[in-house]
Amino acid sequence: MTIGEEVTLDALPLREDLRGKTPYGAPQLDVPVRLNTNENPYPPPPELVADVAEAVRAEAAELHRYPDRDAVALRQDLADYLSVSTRVVLSEANVWAANGSNEVLQQILQAFGGPGRSALGFEPSYSMHPIIASGTRTEWVPAPRRADFTLDTAAAASVIRERRPDIVFVTSPNNPTGGSIPLDELRAVLDAATGIVVVDEAYAEFSSQPSAVGLLADYPAKLIVSRTMSKAFAFAGGRLGYLAAAPAVVDALQLVRLPYHLSRLTQAAARAALRHADATLDSVHKLAAERDRVVEALAGLGFDPVPSDSNFVLFGPFADPQAAWKSYLDRGVLIRDPGIRGHLRVSIGTPEENDAFLEASKEVSR
Amino acid sequence: MTIGEEVTLDALPLREDLRGKTPYGAPQLDVPVRLNTNENPYPPPPELVADVAEAVRAEAAELHRYPDRDAVALRQDLADYLSVSTRVVLSEANVWAANGSNEVLQQILQAFGGPGRSALGFEPSYSMHPIIASGTRTEWVPAPRRADFTLDTAAAASVIRERRPDIVFVTSPNNPTGGSIPLDELRAVLDAATGIVVVDEAYAEFSSQPSAVGLLADYPAKLIVSRTMSKAFAFAGGRLGYLAAAPAVVDALQLVRLPYHLSRLTQAAARAALRHADATLDSVHKLAAERDRVVEALAGLGFDPVPSDSNFVLFGPFADPQAAWKSYLDRGVLIRDPGIRGHLRVSIGTPEENDAFLEASKEVSR
Repeated sequence: MTIGEEVTLDALPLREDLRGKTPYGAPQLDVPVRLNTNENPYPPPPELVADVAEAVRAEAAELHRYPDRDAVALRQDLADYLSVSTRVVLSEANVWAANGSNEVLQQILQAFGGPGRSALGFEPSYSMHPIIASGTRTEWVPAPRRADFTLDTAAAASVIRERRPDIVFVTSPNNPTGGSIPLDELRAVLDAATGIVVVDEAYAEFSSQPSAVGLLADYPAKLIVSRTMSKAFAFAGGRLGYLAAAPAVVDALQLVRLPYHLSRLTQAAARAALRHADATLDSVHKLAAERDRVVEALAGLGFDPVPSDSNFVLFGPFADPQAAWKSYLDRGVLIRDPGIRGHLRVSIGTPEENDAFLEASKEVSR
Repeated sequence: MTIGEEVTLDALPLREDLRGKTPYGAPQLDVPVRLNTNENPYPPPPELVADVAEAVRAEAAELHRYPDRDAVALRQDLADYLSVSTRVVLSEANVWAANGSNEVLQQILQAFGGPGRSALGFEPSYSMHPIIASGTRTEWVPAPRRADFTLDTAAAASVIRERRPDIVFVTSPNNPTGGSIPLDELRAVLDAATGIVVVDEAYAEFSSQPSAVGLLADYPAKLIVSRTMSKAFAFAGGRLGYLAAAPAVVDALQLVRLPYHLSRLTQAAARAALRHADATLDSVHKLAAERDRVVEALAGLGFDPVPSDSNFVLFGPFADPQAAWKSYLDRGVLIRDPGIRGHLRVSIGTPEENDAFLEASKEVSR
């Protein structure tokens, strides 16, 4: 007998808009080939593991003390990484970090969104954007993409001018569809916006397009570029999201962040992982090459994969995606059903994992 | 020249209620004696440090994979700890965890508070309660304590019946005043409440009163007991807060939590720290004895310390607390100015730190 098990969720004074909802999240299943959450399939190199463990050991002696509330050293390291990779010189004052980019996005919505304000996104896109908007009581305004999932920036600018959202989300490369947006097209969105534009670059390292960080100097009062160490950095388990923006944006987020939100361990481990950026990012090239191979092979099997600039591929057509998803699972391959008519999404794994996926693809029911 | 430094906070489309605010947080100053944030002054024992480092090393090999989104193993360990320490048998289904109790409280307010709803607290109390309420746009209803900072539970029940808040906060032991509330008095609050009652037990291990966990069986649809590993467990740097409640409350929080909010490192490190609970909690008795010594010594110096059931002491009177705070700092002792007329708060440190504080107390201006 568990204490309180007689109480049902319906009996609790839950806020009305949560009633009937289910928690976000892909199934966490223990299957041989896991290609469902866009993780980097390559484990951290042994030197990185040793360095993280050593950094944590040193930090653990001070576990009784609160961490640096402003995570200054980590933000400096992230600024250095972005400066090298985007060739735009950023300082620690331009960077903010939190427990995963979800928390970064939540803080942005707490500071610039909320009741009576709205956030607009181009769907299909990252499904946490409307969920985090709802969690902060920000009205969600869905806007369409083209039938091929690319962004029609003229139409986007037009809907932004019409709806005047407080926040615009542009995901580039877009999840779950894979394409990214050239900087000159992003300018059309930024020119139209009267509020904040968040360019969600969770998959930026896989992209052939330059980072929107290059536009910060031109749009300092509008643009926030969000990033994560979960994908290219193979640090999904470490939970470190960050952003680049004008220093005043960082000041604004410090008004809503929970104090000491980033633990000593997170700060130390992320800094250790950043010291191994070159080794970790080597996997990006391997994954991009594998992605191109998977796309070609899928096309050879008669599928219609969406061109991808990321570490995943959206593909179809399926008459019944849910049945096809289950059919992959029955073959030991876990992929994602993103709820887009006729489509499924596969993360790019190791060559062996991709082979297993492609083998299964020959057999699943269309 | 930092990119975007010409943009001011005023130029950003910040939500109105944040304008003019400053970030929460005590000064993080590098002084010899830090007695300002109620940290446990005793560093983790070497065995704990080694165990945390080893747990993190094992976990780091899987850093490229997302953590267990539901943190089941950690919640089981926390349930076991609570079951032993409170003698109430809890299961993993009764426990939820997040990055510090601040995140736990924020999730509670997201699920049960928000616009059009209200949260009531008895002031002075933990100053993050109204800040987190504001961050979730929950109306904050301040209610008074007696002049001696104890809770008049008859008056409390009366204000609850009158205002019918959706959430009531009761901090026991209360921060920054130090006293705790007997269970039969808590019952009066619970009986009066029509919504959720959060008993914030951040300092429970220092208390002479039994935990409110003992009331869960009687009030399963109302009561949430929040806890932290920051204080007694000397894990402030690890950021681990948790709660005990009916399983349906945990279900509700899973509707608002950000997915994968607890990193692999946090889960592994907290589990390692819990394995050393006996050693860590040894410090609780030392600190309680030191607290009693400090209270007595302060009284001997002509101060009027508030009786404390925690690891800190509120004391006065000071004609000018800010000047007195600075006067302590000039003597190398960092304490807290909680903004309560005539009072300052000192955390209990090691005997040597407490001696330094008491020496300084002889000299500061009243």
